Amino acid sequence: MIFRQLFEPISSTYTYLLGCEDTRLAILIDPVMPTWERDLEVVQALGLKLAYTLDTHIHADHLTSASKLKQMAGSKIAGPSLDQLPCTDIPIEEGKRFQMGSIQIDPLHTPGHTDNHFAYRLGERVFTGDALLIDGCGRTDFQNGDAEALYRSITEKLFTLPDETLVFPAHDYEGRRVSSVAQEKIRNPRLGGHKSLQEFVAIMHELKLAYPKFIDYAVPGNKACGACPPGIPEELQKYCGQISDSPQG
Amino acid sequence: MIFRQLFEPISSTYTYLLGCEDTRLAILIDPVMPTWERDLEVVQALGLKLAYTLDTHIHADHLTSASKLKQMAGSKIAGPSLDQLPCTDIPIEEGKRFQMGSIQIDPLHTPGHTDNHFAYRLGERVFTGDALLIDGCGRTDFQNGDAEALYRSITEKLFTLPDETLVFPAHDYEGRRVSSVAQEKIRNPRLGGHKSLQEFVAIMHELKLAYPKFIDYAVPGNKACGACPPGIPEELQKYCGQISDSPQG
Repeated sequence: MIFRQLFEPISSTYTYLLGCEDTRLAILIDPVMPTWERDLEVVQALGLKLAYTLDTHIHADHLTSASKLKQMAGSKIAGPSLDQLPCTDIPIEEGKRFQMGSIQIDPLHTPGHTDNHFAYRLGERVFTGDALLIDGCGRTDFQNGDAEALYRSITEKLFTLPDETLVFPAHDYEGRRVSSVAQEKIRNPRLGGHKSLQEFVAIMHELKLAYPKFIDYAVPGNKACGACPPGIPEELQKYCGQISDSPQG
Repeated sequence: MIFRQLFEPISSTYTYLLGCEDTRLAILIDPVMPTWERDLEVVQALGLKLAYTLDTHIHADHLTSASKLKQMAGSKIAGPSLDQLPCTDIPIEEGKRFQMGSIQIDPLHTPGHTDNHFAYRLGERVFTGDALLIDGCGRTDFQNGDAEALYRSITEKLFTLPDETLVFPAHDYEGRRVSSVAQEKIRNPRLGGHKSLQEFVAIMHELKLAYPKFIDYAVPGNKACGACPPGIPEELQKYCGQISDSPQG
């Protein structure tokens, strides 16, 4: 498999490129609007054709470039079926393997950061989205977030994967790029070292995080698979790419 | 490939188990004396036969279990040819691929921590020994260590591997288990972020580290592939395993 970990610095997002060496088709997991051109260039420079974009959840911190890439490269939009977005071409469900050539992805419903959040397991790697981060986890105070649900998602679905499974998160704000299930089980300060549900819930409730800067445009925009929502302030429009080009999905 | 990252807590060493699914043969990289039985049990529980032990260098902080495992499991001892140890069965050289079934290891001479230190590249993984650690590197103040040589080993041999190459170090003292070439290039505080040779050498010279606790027995012991050297104080003999069982190599 061809594998690239691409970084988008505005929202500190990792976009993952998976390429099948036989079919020369590619998937981008969590592609982000400001870097859609860079991402497509990387796909093409590797001699691949973008077949799918695959989002882990409806992001609050950036706009997905799923629709943009569909429009520009003809890729199909894959994402959690539970979101029931009319713009989704391939609805993803747990227990239903998503396959592209030799690439086989097992979707894991991992609610808690958002209610419909998914992680994607691919052999010895797991793309954990905003559920499990390196030494951290996604916040649980909006979009039907639920600390108790996140605890169960992580401890019952992610921490039960083999110890050596590589953890590739959707974000890191300190330049870290990879961890493993064993590492997070041992040293994740929020729920590693066998922290109890009660300890985790207390930690999450005490975070007192600021209201997310982009949530009011990002969530409606991402519910349209990455269209820039009407009424967005001019200084934020750069995050949408070229709005006039926005697809209908 | 079957892959396990095993931890030895006394010296905070990671021992890596590589198993070939076709031949059912296994390699242990940097196995450590106090955990030789555990390591062998893991090999056997996976239905594998230990064929080789492979050390990255002559360790100063622990005793290799190479000879012990040879004695108990019939494995062959592989290690840097430059060390010219009479107990080495398979002398390792850069440019000479080490192969066991479908497992292909490319040895990289990476001097600096010790003069004859090797890293081992295996596809998308590199086992960096004590040359490159997560957010750190091996010390360079004994065993012909050389900060300038280490800088060149890391920047010219390890940092030129593809960004996504997974870095598996021989030690971590904070529970971290894996990094990547891109991560270390960006955020390694000693030589990431394009630090110059001069900056790195200054950092290494200012470390003022204590004299290593076990070096006086570990180095001669490891020059005999893990025999407990004569005259070792009683309280340290536990680190040697059963001395009376020590092989002649």
